[in-house]
Amino acid sequence: MSATPPSLPPSRRASDSTVRRLSLYLRFLEDFQAEGRQTVSSRHLASRGSTTAAQVRKDLSLFGSFGKRGLGYDVPQLAERLRDILGLARPWRVALVGAGRIGSALFHYPGFQERGFQLTAILDVATHRVGESWGAIRVQHVADLETVVRDGQVDIVVVAVPGPAAQEVVDRAVAGGVKAFLNFAPVSLKVPSGVAVNNVNLAAELEVLSFHLLGRDARE
Amino acid sequence: MSATPPSLPPSRRASDSTVRRLSLYLRFLEDFQAEGRQTVSSRHLASRGSTTAAQVRKDLSLFGSFGKRGLGYDVPQLAERLRDILGLARPWRVALVGAGRIGSALFHYPGFQERGFQLTAILDVATHRVGESWGAIRVQHVADLETVVRDGQVDIVVVAVPGPAAQEVVDRAVAGGVKAFLNFAPVSLKVPSGVAVNNVNLAAELEVLSFHLLGRDARE
Repeated sequence: MSATPPSLPPSRRASDSTVRRLSLYLRFLEDFQAEGRQTVSSRHLASRGSTTAAQVRKDLSLFGSFGKRGLGYDVPQLAERLRDILGLARPWRVALVGAGRIGSALFHYPGFQERGFQLTAILDVATHRVGESWGAIRVQHVADLETVVRDGQVDIVVVAVPGPAAQEVVDRAVAGGVKAFLNFAPVSLKVPSGVAVNNVNLAAELEVLSFHLLGRDARE
Repeated sequence: MSATPPSLPPSRRASDSTVRRLSLYLRFLEDFQAEGRQTVSSRHLASRGSTTAAQVRKDLSLFGSFGKRGLGYDVPQLAERLRDILGLARPWRVALVGAGRIGSALFHYPGFQERGFQLTAILDVATHRVGESWGAIRVQHVADLETVVRDGQVDIVVVAVPGPAAQEVVDRAVAGGVKAFLNFAPVSLKVPSGVAVNNVNLAAELEVLSFHLLGRDARE
């Protein structure tokens, strides 16, 4: 609702929630593309994303001018632009640290590869997992983290280790130059500025729901 | 930063991000308990959660008065209160719809049961999965969703089905009275007011990181 400061470069202006919405718009656009649709209105995009047409236009306006008044957006063009904006036009190399249940689910998660996130290394502390083949990747011991990072194979580290082990993994990867982490461990990680951490805490997500359920119970 | 409206009931005042922080504080308190610590300061809790002591005090003050100035918080007492506030003092019954990779990872996720989220039903559309035993639970066909919900076994539905199948699952569960959903499908779900949906979109979380990485690349 507040005015966007015009002096900031575009990529600074977008909050994480804006980026999440852009990601959702892209998903809808790809559905529309698959259906052979050529144009889409901001209203239609909004209805698929449970947001408003004004929000769609505001989100997109951060990155330039799209669409024509009354004609809507060109579906393949906007999809292409969003892929550019989101950094999906180039492949990102991802190392997975932790080859347990969560690591395994991520490995099999279809959205991962589809979106250009290329798993290049899997590391685990359990010696019985080391040497296992996951697709074309051989599981390495987590002691090799420095080597894996030094060899330039890693843009993003996915942290899927138990809480107490997470900070050390991150410290070692940061020391090697990794600038982005997706963290599944239920701890708050400390990183220097310029390094991005995105936390996915499944227990906390459930607790948000239980809090809601209880709130309702108490008031009804 | 803004003043909290005093007229709202406590549970209305806490945003989802407050609840996520409370969940994190509880995790730290449980670590402290395991270490045999009796008291903890808001500063110490803050440092573990990468937030400020003022934020910790503000978050907790929404739910009453805790701790003594200069003495800090009693660890077991505050942990107990947080479990109450978060609704973890009672078990919640969870139905998992979608017994694929994500469903399986959730099934094995240790935080799930530890936190009192009791998996009571697993449903899938694939006939070859129906009848499988997952621990003590027999996988049922998703056609049985109404029966499962009607039998009163479900507080929360975890949606781990492909995007195009998600809305129908939610509509049917809502019709049966389910009021909380944890959604892993990469779609925005429509629910009536009073029903909570918490979305976990792993692809979008990765895209937030790739956006950050690209932003840095462009500016450096």
